[in-house]
Amino acid sequence: MLDLAGTFVFAVTGALVAVRGRLDLFGTLVLASATGLGGGVIRDMLLGDVPPTGLTAWRFLLACALAGVVAFLWHPAFSRWEGVLLGLDAAGLALFCVNGALVAREAGLDVVPAALLGMITGIGGGIVRDVLANRVPVVLEGGWYAVPALTGAAWTSFADREGWATPLVVAPALLVVFGWRVLAVRRGWTPLPARGVD
Amino acid sequence: MLDLAGTFVFAVTGALVAVRGRLDLFGTLVLASATGLGGGVIRDMLLGDVPPTGLTAWRFLLACALAGVVAFLWHPAFSRWEGVLLGLDAAGLALFCVNGALVAREAGLDVVPAALLGMITGIGGGIVRDVLANRVPVVLEGGWYAVPALTGAAWTSFADREGWATPLVVAPALLVVFGWRVLAVRRGWTPLPARGVD
Amino acid sequence: MLDLAGTFVFAVTGALVAVRGRLDLFGTLVLASATGLGGGVIRDMLLGDVPPTGLTAWRFLLACALAGVVAFLWHPAFSRWEGVLLGLDAAGLALFCVNGALVAREAGLDVVPAALLGMITGIGGGIVRDVLANRVPVVLEGGWYAVPALTGAAWTSFADREGWATPLVVAPALLVVFGWRVLAVRRGWTPLPARGVD
Repeated sequence: MLDLAGTFVFAVTGALVAVRGRLDLFGTLVLASATGLGGGVIRDMLLGDVPPTGLTAWRFLLACALAGVVAFLWHPAFSRWEGVLLGLDAAGLALFCVNGALVAREAGLDVVPAALLGMITGIGGGIVRDVLANRVPVVLEGGWYAVPALTGAAWTSFADREGWATPLVVAPALLVVFGWRVLAVRRGWTPLPARGVD
Repeated sequence: MLDLAGTFVFAVTGALVAVRGRLDLFGTLVLASATGLGGGVIRDMLLGDVPPTGLTAWRFLLACALAGVVAFLWHPAFSRWEGVLLGLDAAGLALFCVNGALVAREAGLDVVPAALLGMITGIGGGIVRDVLANRVPVVLEGGWYAVPALTGAAWTSFADREGWATPLVVAPALLVVFGWRVLAVRRGWTPLPARGVD
Repeated sequence: MLDLAGTFVFAVTGALVAVRGRLDLFGTLVLASATGLGGGVIRDMLLGDVPPTGLTAWRFLLACALAGVVAFLWHPAFSRWEGVLLGLDAAGLALFCVNGALVAREAGLDVVPAALLGMITGIGGGIVRDVLANRVPVVLEGGWYAVPALTGAAWTSFADREGWATPLVVAPALLVVFGWRVLAVRRGWTPLPARGVD
């Protein structure tokens, strides 16, 4: 469920970038799918779990197609509600970080690699979206993107190793990633820039 | 044969983009190889069939090198014949869609995943080429690129599952992808754009 | 040791690109890690050796983090010493070419595929760095980048097959890639451009 929800909200962000970039319906569907499925496909390829679930299970494809069509038809609603878009991106990040860390743990990875893989799963979809759309990936712009993702994935990996109950593994991580990310963007937090660059 | 021919024609398109971008001979060879081999390497990585054939079989490397040198030396001929370039790209798309779907079927994938994988194989090389050359991938510009690819790959997968004779599996798919794509570009077909984007 | 050194110097180049692109500390760490780990992760995925060592072994992550922090804090020193940066990039290229070819040989690949895989390992990190930073990859700009890499990797593969002693396998390849690359940039060598492009 975590990954299906994450797929949908990431696909919506990809579709919105496509619509604003004046892509047509099919370009929008392609970018929505690449964004929605990107993180999970990268996760599965890094774990050797091929062919990736994202390409073989109907529900992920349907989620991407639905997201693409919804964004294509009703994008004015989204573009007026920048906050909704921000929330969706943060939600997708949170869902995929936690899911990626859990899948990596199930595949037998240790805590630190699993946390890394969770972070990569979370930020992967956005990187695919931005590279395809020829933009500098949002994760590089900093402003607290990779750090909340890594924190949430690390919590998930750690709590999973300790064998804690599922809500205690998942809920705090989701809250931290989502809340940290939303606060960072809302308040325009920018972490340490390098000094002395012109 | 399908993939060798597809590799060659895609490599030529990569080489032409390189030559026009004022790359030197070796940059041209690198972009030609990445474009020619990209779709197949992505296909093999998604299927877990590593190391990818494109890196281990001489004939694919020779095809890429040949395409790079030909385009480098005789590019004026190509650039005058825009139609030839268009035809090559459409031919590569058609060949790789069909080949990708067949390889995926052989690897045991079901019809829908095999169709998707065929589409990805077809559009992969062009995506690699355009991302490396720092352009928005042509598949995102829409104008009927991913849809013919998916249609051809879907036909191939379906006909292969039904156990039809090879010509009936391959020929209609090649014709549909190639013809649809050429018609779409020649006539400037543009599918539904989103309404209300400034 | 070859790959750890290569990871560090490539990570420094990624961090310097990030700092000059006005990224903050975390964006710098992300780009440093992607550059430092990129070549090895691509190598491992092409060989089916997953999860990639770069994500599971502490030392690679520490090397990337260290490189990012060093470049972030002391970048004025680097930017004054362009020659140092050039040398680091050439050193990373040399180290990864040789390492990639050796790893591919150990995985059972023949001479030519192993040479290719070595080249891909060498140029991979730089491609990841430049694609993420939205620049045309340096390997495409030519000026003798892929050719020294392929030459060094080919030597390594060949000498490894002949069963020569390790220093004879490794040292000439490192020297050739590093020296050739440094000379090419210092002297502004540019190989054959295509004629007749406006």
